[in-house]
Amino acid sequence: MRRGRLLESTLENIGTLDRQAMAQARRRMDELLKPPGSLGVLEDIAVRLAGIVRRPFPAIGGKCVILMAGDHGVVEEGVSAAPQEVTRQMMPRFVDGTAGIGVLARHVDARLVVVDIGVAGPVVSEGVVVKKIRPGTGNIARGPAMTEDEALQAVEAGIELAACEIDRGADLLAAGDMGIGNTTPSSAILCVMAGVQPAEAVGRGTMVDDEVLDRKRRVVARALEVNRPDPSRPLDVLAKVGGLEIAGLAGVMLGAAARRVPLLLDGFITGASALIARALCPRLNDFMFASHLSQEKAHRRMLAALGLKPILDLDLRLGEGTGAALAMPIVEAAAKILSEMATFTEAAVSDIKRSDKK
Amino acid sequence: MRRGRLLESTLENIGTLDRQAMAQARRRMDELLKPPGSLGVLEDIAVRLAGIVRRPFPAIGGKCVILMAGDHGVVEEGVSAAPQEVTRQMMPRFVDGTAGIGVLARHVDARLVVVDIGVAGPVVSEGVVVKKIRPGTGNIARGPAMTEDEALQAVEAGIELAACEIDRGADLLAAGDMGIGNTTPSSAILCVMAGVQPAEAVGRGTMVDDEVLDRKRRVVARALEVNRPDPSRPLDVLAKVGGLEIAGLAGVMLGAAARRVPLLLDGFITGASALIARALCPRLNDFMFASHLSQEKAHRRMLAALGLKPILDLDLRLGEGTGAALAMPIVEAAAKILSEMATFTEAAVSDIKRSDKK
Repeated sequence: MRRGRLLESTLENIGTLDRQAMAQARRRMDELLKPPGSLGVLEDIAVRLAGIVRRPFPAIGGKCVILMAGDHGVVEEGVSAAPQEVTRQMMPRFVDGTAGIGVLARHVDARLVVVDIGVAGPVVSEGVVVKKIRPGTGNIARGPAMTEDEALQAVEAGIELAACEIDRGADLLAAGDMGIGNTTPSSAILCVMAGVQPAEAVGRGTMVDDEVLDRKRRVVARALEVNRPDPSRPLDVLAKVGGLEIAGLAGVMLGAAARRVPLLLDGFITGASALIARALCPRLNDFMFASHLSQEKAHRRMLAALGLKPILDLDLRLGEGTGAALAMPIVEAAAKILSEMATFTEAAVSDIKRSDKK
Repeated sequence: MRRGRLLESTLENIGTLDRQAMAQARRRMDELLKPPGSLGVLEDIAVRLAGIVRRPFPAIGGKCVILMAGDHGVVEEGVSAAPQEVTRQMMPRFVDGTAGIGVLARHVDARLVVVDIGVAGPVVSEGVVVKKIRPGTGNIARGPAMTEDEALQAVEAGIELAACEIDRGADLLAAGDMGIGNTTPSSAILCVMAGVQPAEAVGRGTMVDDEVLDRKRRVVARALEVNRPDPSRPLDVLAKVGGLEIAGLAGVMLGAAARRVPLLLDGFITGASALIARALCPRLNDFMFASHLSQEKAHRRMLAALGLKPILDLDLRLGEGTGAALAMPIVEAAAKILSEMATFTEAAVSDIKRSDKK
């Protein structure tokens, strides 16, 4: 297939929410054995799920967390407290289930797919899906992260992976990231795509102190100056100040939406992917849920830019898809409310809405 | 057993958090394959669980939602949009699993125990645990809800039920309520126990309009005036302006704490129970988690009075234990993080905390 064709056809396949299924779901929701609106956010999630899957009774069977890992040339600027090798060292731990996301994916009964899309150095782990576009990005403080062709390859790898997991039975996806240094390109993307200044867009990421925080802000400012990414061309932004896992996860989001499968964002890095993916297809937002509000300072600003409200607020900042995994049972619960609760009529209970006020 | 002896011995048996187990859990938490603190609220929950169960690796096996139902004489003042008969009509729906809590308890794999502790009229359902102290309370706008002896009986019934479920294997409990009109006594309790004015303590409950809201405020003010409950005597407060399910659930909380089993509060009504229970034993707080922040306006004030931070904020206002059930997987996840994640050393990953800043 001609490079770029998969992305084009995917974008064409992303439709709109099914308003009829949503209206049916909302009607049923209001007839259920509870005061209308009393299940709050759960009701909204359920109705949107109906619109995504085009059925008034959405059911969630298979769940899958797609974790993409990549490295970042910008770490040579000293923007991260952890050494780059940690990205590669974590891969076997993701596979054997002893990392945070392993525990939580198992807990919520989700399959965990670990993808090397751009880890520095050779592939080290069995059980890793290898889609390595290149072994880490270039240093965005001095030049582009990658070529636009590489960014496109990473996005299309993500689309393919989403399709593959959906074919295997996933009907709820979660996006997860790993990559030492990846809050720096994510902040740069937030600056470009939402017109935020580096001082606001850059946070502490993992354990950086005041000195490093300051340096990180200067590095993001320099990356924008050196590369001059064009916000009207999302692939240009990805190539110039993005990351391979960020690009890949943008592809996962697009691929899921094209197949009408709901997807849960995780935190700050997957939010950056979403900013890119949504710029490629504004309708994308309807197919995604923000799982949580991260401890990373600028995440609130990012979610506002995305127009998404977080389901959870647990002060997380681990990444890996951990927040997204934790929100999966909530999304499932919403779907079950619609399909498993009785209505007032079915239950022979006096309908609160129709009773006389005394 | 002499009436009151069970309550006394239960209060005596409520201990303090095990600081040593908590320190061990915190140490392990900080060694796990993640930046310290990056799992936010999950880390705090896990450490507190360790202190409750006195083991550095708390494990949660059996889960149980105890739902107590009772009616309220005060509905004759017109403080509720729904007719009183709904409480009784819901009982078979709780038992057959088609009410909201049925769906959610099943979803989180929790046993649901449905208790008639004071529903108006005769017992109607199979599968209901009958601990009926009386068929509904008196109208608190005109006199006491019940006698102090009845309040004590209800509390002790709750203690016994908690013990019974713990004996059956529950090691995480959730409190749920059902009772048309029960936001009114709950608001009254908030006024008495936290010094809040009726205007602030009374919210809309289920679907009440401005006129009813206004009436509800006057009714609460009148209930306080007529009954003059004594905040230094929690059983007096229960008897004068409480409810049977509110009293029973206070007992469940005390019973769980005495057996060192963590308990999840639900919303506004279980919060009122907690205000009473905590007044009986200030150490109780350490053994409880607030599952969510309710849509009911004064719940925020109530949680502040309790000194508990909600895990979820999903705009719920159904009661029945639905919020508590939804938070159960989060509490379980916290426990699993401690016991199933590897440490940096075990995983042979460069410890972020020990690496040189570059």
